Amino acid sequence: MAWTTSAIAVDAGGSTTRALVVAADGQCGPIVRSGPGNPISGAQQAATNIADACAAAMSASQQQPDLVVATVAGILSKDFPELTHVLTERDLPTRLVLVSDLLGAYFSGTAAPDGSVMIVGTGAVAAKVSGGRLSAVRDGLGWLLGDSGSGFWIGQRVARAVAAALDGRGPETSLTPRVLELLVDVPRRSGARQSDVAALLTWSHARRPVELAQLAILAAEEADSDPISQTICSEAASHALRTLGSLPGSAAGPVVIGGGVLHPGSPVGRDVLEALGGRAKPVSDGVAGAALMAIKELGGSADDNALQRITTAISRR
Amino acid sequence: MAWTTSAIAVDAGGSTTRALVVAADGQCGPIVRSGPGNPISGAQQAATNIADACAAAMSASQQQPDLVVATVAGILSKDFPELTHVLTERDLPTRLVLVSDLLGAYFSGTAAPDGSVMIVGTGAVAAKVSGGRLSAVRDGLGWLLGDSGSGFWIGQRVARAVAAALDGRGPETSLTPRVLELLVDVPRRSGARQSDVAALLTWSHARRPVELAQLAILAAEEADSDPISQTICSEAASHALRTLGSLPGSAAGPVVIGGGVLHPGSPVGRDVLEALGGRAKPVSDGVAGAALMAIKELGGSADDNALQRITTAISRR
Repeated sequence: MAWTTSAIAVDAGGSTTRALVVAADGQCGPIVRSGPGNPISGAQQAATNIADACAAAMSASQQQPDLVVATVAGILSKDFPELTHVLTERDLPTRLVLVSDLLGAYFSGTAAPDGSVMIVGTGAVAAKVSGGRLSAVRDGLGWLLGDSGSGFWIGQRVARAVAAALDGRGPETSLTPRVLELLVDVPRRSGARQSDVAALLTWSHARRPVELAQLAILAAEEADSDPISQTICSEAASHALRTLGSLPGSAAGPVVIGGGVLHPGSPVGRDVLEALGGRAKPVSDGVAGAALMAIKELGGSADDNALQRITTAISRR
Repeated sequence: MAWTTSAIAVDAGGSTTRALVVAADGQCGPIVRSGPGNPISGAQQAATNIADACAAAMSASQQQPDLVVATVAGILSKDFPELTHVLTERDLPTRLVLVSDLLGAYFSGTAAPDGSVMIVGTGAVAAKVSGGRLSAVRDGLGWLLGDSGSGFWIGQRVARAVAAALDGRGPETSLTPRVLELLVDVPRRSGARQSDVAALLTWSHARRPVELAQLAILAAEEADSDPISQTICSEAASHALRTLGSLPGSAAGPVVIGGGVLHPGSPVGRDVLEALGGRAKPVSDGVAGAALMAIKELGGSADDNALQRITTAISRR
């Protein structure tokens, strides 16, 4: 049966794109997934993946949506011509509303028009939402000059702590065997510390610096027993809270938190949740927020009841 | 008049090569200079520059030295075939003794066979000297995983502090106008903080990360009046002292310090000098040490009197 009016809500993430069809009254079609949709790492491929998700969501819901509401990382202007082109070519809805992934995350956690959002994954960024729009952004400045407390920030500290320990400058840490395990492809003399240091240098410099973020998980896993890991994680949490606290008006309203580093089960996430108390709303992605914004675009009632209905529909599937 | 036996002492630095002819009895020819002699940034050009310095030193002293003693940065093995080739081609002494620039710096400050040396410039490295040879090295691991307290380390903190201040996350600092002055080539809207942040990001990412070391001088210049600069410099000094302190047996003997960051007139240099007291021997380059090692190679007496004679001869010219 055809719904009133409907839209395709898309969360175009760096590793996965998620989409579903949502009606003005909050009814939801099944959620579908496709490949990376972040135009920063290739706009043409991202557009194709987003279109794939749109087509799959339409087919799964058997509806004819009027528009696409997509949250896209790194979209600062409202311009994504490759996506408009692919949607037209494939006979998908061509009315396209692009919104920041920060808003997608925010509205996945709350329908309140005023509040804050902080995402800490490989990078770290916080934003204030006022009247349903981004009114201020803090950090998100990249690994060299910013991203304080981010996955990169943690991962680099892990690598530096291990280098210092092997070099005889820093305290021993259980991170050392964990990191050395990863260097399987680098030839080295087992048990020779100088050879281990050289292998770690070779491994790190063979990658883009930002890839050190993959070591962040080791600090999270060792934090309960290793003081070095514990310090790194608690300093990362302090940085996240400081970035959040630097937003104007951040002391009031809901605070949506997302990204792997702020996962509620991780040490950094636990610290941040504890500091924020009941105001914290953890989210795992931005697709519910995209759906809520789609309801608003369709003229429906984008309130907490609608959000509740969306998240229930998503988690049921 | 011909001296007994003599050698060309060369300090092949990253920006300048210095050379002089020295006799077994400590008599010195005039000091001469040529271009960069660090084989890491081009072995052929470095070899040519070193040979130029050798030829000029020979001509200035009007002696026929028997060998070349050269301190070279980054020489880990005793292999520099390009230099041997150029020396042969140009009819210069072909007996070549290559030594680490760490030893060159060390013996520029003392003739004692046992002690320590720390060089903090763009990078940071410390070594223990035992019986006239390097017996342990700490740090020198590069900007990504090491070089704690180095010019890069300071420069990156300068850039991050300015980025945080402009972003509204960090305290105001007098480093901000100093850094913004340098961004002359990056277009931006004057007085707009977000535009300044974007310009700083553009400027930083257009360079190799290690080039952030050029901002280190700003922290030194602002340290007397700016608390942020003061903190950065005093933490850099702590890192240098920690690296030094991690060397086995570093608590006794002379400590030779060199490199721009440890200049006795700089805040980091002052802190380190104060902590080391009378044990600290600041040096500005490694040519005196190369000359002292040359005297030893010639069978002369490489003691503190000889070093005194060399440094007096160098400073007189």
